[in-house]
Amino acid sequence: MEKSLYLKILVPVDGSKYSNKALAHACELAKMHKAVLLLIYVVDKSIPLNFLDRREYLTLLRNYGKKIMKKASSTANQRGVTSKQIIKEGNVSKEIIKTAKSERCNLIVVGNKGLGATARFFLGSTSTKLAADSPCSVLIIK
Amino acid sequence: MEKSLYLKILVPVDGSKYSNKALAHACELAKMHKAVLLLIYVVDKSIPLNFLDRREYLTLLRNYGKKIMKKASSTANQRGVTSKQIIKEGNVSKEIIKTAKSERCNLIVVGNKGLGATARFFLGSTSTKLAADSPCSVLIIK
Repeated sequence: MEKSLYLKILVPVDGSKYSNKALAHACELAKMHKAVLLLIYVVDKSIPLNFLDRREYLTLLRNYGKKIMKKASSTANQRGVTSKQIIKEGNVSKEIIKTAKSERCNLIVVGNKGLGATARFFLGSTSTKLAADSPCSVLIIK
Repeated sequence: MEKSLYLKILVPVDGSKYSNKALAHACELAKMHKAVLLLIYVVDKSIPLNFLDRREYLTLLRNYGKKIMKKASSTANQRGVTSKQIIKEGNVSKEIIKTAKSERCNLIVVGNKGLGATARFFLGSTSTKLAADSPCSVLIIK
């Protein structure tokens, strides 16, 4: 038996088709490598909005997050993978990296584009810094 | 039997410890997923130098490329993986992407830093463009 390359795989989900593709790929990897699958959604609090808009917007995001997390978890189940769900609030990339560290993940699987969070996370202007900051390997799914 | 996720894996090598780590990881993936392993070294012709220096420098790079390609191929062999070696000349990122396309690779495995080529390829200022241009998934190894 080969030593497993991946023990804990983190997948940021945002409901986009890109993150769905990343999730499907991560499920196959998790099965093959007998890894634990962690799903993360981050309520993006870094968007500048005025106070009232902001409260309303964050409530929307929180509900959206719960909804897509439920869907992602059910997708994983259908693919034969049990997942753990994590919802965080804050700066998307920072929370993903913090979680990868605290959960001792050894792989982050992301789509190459996204509705917002995931796209900004890896392909935004801070991609250099982020790839450098990630404590583990990063797989960008096409 | 699961459908294999990776059929052809491309690893840019530059002799750095980062690319060696990526190579080791790619060998494990290749074994596990029964994928073909392609090693690529690109003689970087995009560096501006005066004509005489340039010829000398390119000769150096060509010899260096052959040397590290031989070493990489032997490392792969020791890990039980047969590899195909490709040496190209030109712009590093463009040649890697062209090869990934022409060889129909479905994964590129790179180190997160490198002596030059690989580092510039993924973590340089053009990382956004490159990640977008890659025809297949990209795994950045930490």
